[in-house]
Amino acid sequence: MEMNIRERAKKALENIRELGPLVHNITNYVAANFQANVLLAIGASPVMAHSKDEVEDMVAIANALVLNIGTPTKEILNSMIIAGKKANNLKKPVILDPVGVGATKFRNYLVEKILGEVKVNIIRGNASEIGAICGLEGKTKGVDSIIKPEEVLESAIEFSNKTGTIVAISGTTDYIIKGDNIFECHNGVPLLGKITGSGCAVTSIIGAFSAVEEDKALASLFGLALFGVAGEIASKSATGLGSFYSLLIDKLYNLTPEEFSENLKFKIKRS
Amino acid sequence: MEMNIRERAKKALENIRELGPLVHNITNYVAANFQANVLLAIGASPVMAHSKDEVEDMVAIANALVLNIGTPTKEILNSMIIAGKKANNLKKPVILDPVGVGATKFRNYLVEKILGEVKVNIIRGNASEIGAICGLEGKTKGVDSIIKPEEVLESAIEFSNKTGTIVAISGTTDYIIKGDNIFECHNGVPLLGKITGSGCAVTSIIGAFSAVEEDKALASLFGLALFGVAGEIASKSATGLGSFYSLLIDKLYNLTPEEFSENLKFKIKRS
Amino acid sequence: MEMNIRERAKKALENIRELGPLVHNITNYVAANFQANVLLAIGASPVMAHSKDEVEDMVAIANALVLNIGTPTKEILNSMIIAGKKANNLKKPVILDPVGVGATKFRNYLVEKILGEVKVNIIRGNASEIGAICGLEGKTKGVDSIIKPEEVLESAIEFSNKTGTIVAISGTTDYIIKGDNIFECHNGVPLLGKITGSGCAVTSIIGAFSAVEEDKALASLFGLALFGVAGEIASKSATGLGSFYSLLIDKLYNLTPEEFSENLKFKIKRS
Repeated sequence: MEMNIRERAKKALENIRELGPLVHNITNYVAANFQANVLLAIGASPVMAHSKDEVEDMVAIANALVLNIGTPTKEILNSMIIAGKKANNLKKPVILDPVGVGATKFRNYLVEKILGEVKVNIIRGNASEIGAICGLEGKTKGVDSIIKPEEVLESAIEFSNKTGTIVAISGTTDYIIKGDNIFECHNGVPLLGKITGSGCAVTSIIGAFSAVEEDKALASLFGLALFGVAGEIASKSATGLGSFYSLLIDKLYNLTPEEFSENLKFKIKRS
Repeated sequence: MEMNIRERAKKALENIRELGPLVHNITNYVAANFQANVLLAIGASPVMAHSKDEVEDMVAIANALVLNIGTPTKEILNSMIIAGKKANNLKKPVILDPVGVGATKFRNYLVEKILGEVKVNIIRGNASEIGAICGLEGKTKGVDSIIKPEEVLESAIEFSNKTGTIVAISGTTDYIIKGDNIFECHNGVPLLGKITGSGCAVTSIIGAFSAVEEDKALASLFGLALFGVAGEIASKSATGLGSFYSLLIDKLYNLTPEEFSENLKFKIKRS
Repeated sequence: MEMNIRERAKKALENIRELGPLVHNITNYVAANFQANVLLAIGASPVMAHSKDEVEDMVAIANALVLNIGTPTKEILNSMIIAGKKANNLKKPVILDPVGVGATKFRNYLVEKILGEVKVNIIRGNASEIGAICGLEGKTKGVDSIIKPEEVLESAIEFSNKTGTIVAISGTTDYIIKGDNIFECHNGVPLLGKITGSGCAVTSIIGAFSAVEEDKALASLFGLALFGVAGEIASKSATGLGSFYSLLIDKLYNLTPEEFSENLKFKIKRS
């Protein structure tokens, strides 16, 4: 099984490089540039479009849809629901990044509406965000988590079982939850949490993987791991956050599928 | 004639550095930061403003207007038309970047409306976008082209003759079309297509040149060539997309008018 | 007194690193990414949120509020006023960056409305912007200043005395005005003015300092000085604007409170 997963990771990255899946992002203006650049770096094709007048057409030609509530408005919520329903109809993967949910009542409302109207395949957030979604009292500092993934694991398993949604929790150890099945991902470095939009970027990468990998738990694992592996290598020669940012994009671009597969650090757990 | 063009290229970049033309961009939130930084790097002065409540005032003090439909809405369309008409009245150059036209009906509608209401001096797009505008069946992957400039050349010549608009088509070879006259630009490297907003950035650079060079076909050539020359030099020491991005901005800042003029690779063709 | 200020500068940066104050920015889409990254680099926590449906909740958990009119709309003005009033009620510092005021009637109107409805603790702008606010004829080139701080000093002192607002004017020498008291800050390099959003970024840094330093004139001085010191060091190894950008963020991240304190160049003046 483990060898099989390494093999699939390699194959998935090869497929992204070869097919260049189009990832449609309805996202925030802080991270949009970074998300687009990391998608290009890994070999995918980004498109950002949020007007209700075009999101259905864009979803129709896209291979995955990423919904990110980083700088949300009611108009964007409306577009997200239109786009999400279209993606559901066309059986295209929908990935939600619930940035800062728990921080404001409005973000709680947005996530509730989206989850009520759209079948979301994967939710990727930090522990505070996942806690807020899974019914725990959200403890968040703006958009940063102040609790640990381990504290929300039980609730996330319950949520995943009830909804059928994959829940990916970012942290020192990342957890990918598919009902009672759990993958742990041990790739990554603390510096990744110090550049803005790193969570948004990894969610977009998961979007790219979900376009080429049928198993959405594996797609989530691969996305988190690829970002983590590139971060590990980049951090070795970085002299600060600015150079780290450049080196991270360099490495996402240069990393071979073989290197990725070999450096993947994960564990399979069952609850 | 060729020597004359090299001389004008040198002079045009000197003028940008000396006069610092103000380029007003109504643009998308993905590339806005990059566009502003490349404009500053070449010596121009960027301003981004999109509210209908101020675009006329901003056009009045600007030296060129760049309209970019990367992340469009109906409100932004409205502002573009107000701004474009003002620029027409004041005889200031208007440059259109029809990002992703052909991908959605909404973008087709936007471009049709803009071209119907505003006299556009230059359109700069990839082959898919130009094809979509010039009446060919648009073949686009989100915002990326999947056809070659050579496939849309005939239609672009027809369009330019009919409308009087300069059409600049980006690709491995760039084509600048002014009625039956064609310039080819052979500067550039594939890496440029791998950083987000590179098309948007070069359109803004064309905006800066159009403020100092009367012949808008030459302004288009110079903009494409300057970006291409800087990209060629940057790519030599880049170790990936992140470092390429930094080096590209470094080189746009450092390139002397003489270096630019010497490295310009172009051909004059007549159809 | 001078030693006391160096000591407080050191302590203030230590406090930012230790407490990670949450800075809520209602800002523009050109500089948002840069502002977030510099805040993270110095140890603060950024959040961007502009919907009227959530700004009050966000202010409630933030430690400072930064209002930046770089790409303004009427909706954003409305949100700024709601957020600003909430911050006033909760006695949290409000910092205004009046980007491009004087360039359009709309920006003049925005600033007048904000100052009429919200108690602003600090205004940070270039000389053109401060001149426009303090009743001088605004001379601005888009968002760039074409006059010198020294030309608006008298008006700024009058304005500060009348309103009780700290006025920080950026330039070759920065001036921080608190009624009749003036600090000069001599840190900084011209390259800082050549990267987009550098003014916006320094205002966000002032926001972070204002969350940990009671004296808002000192908070302004420390913010301007920290950005300047990092810029000075970065410029030594930069090979252009791209590398300067990276090195600047590296240095903001690496600079120790001791280095900061030692490199602070300021003068205390009384008018």
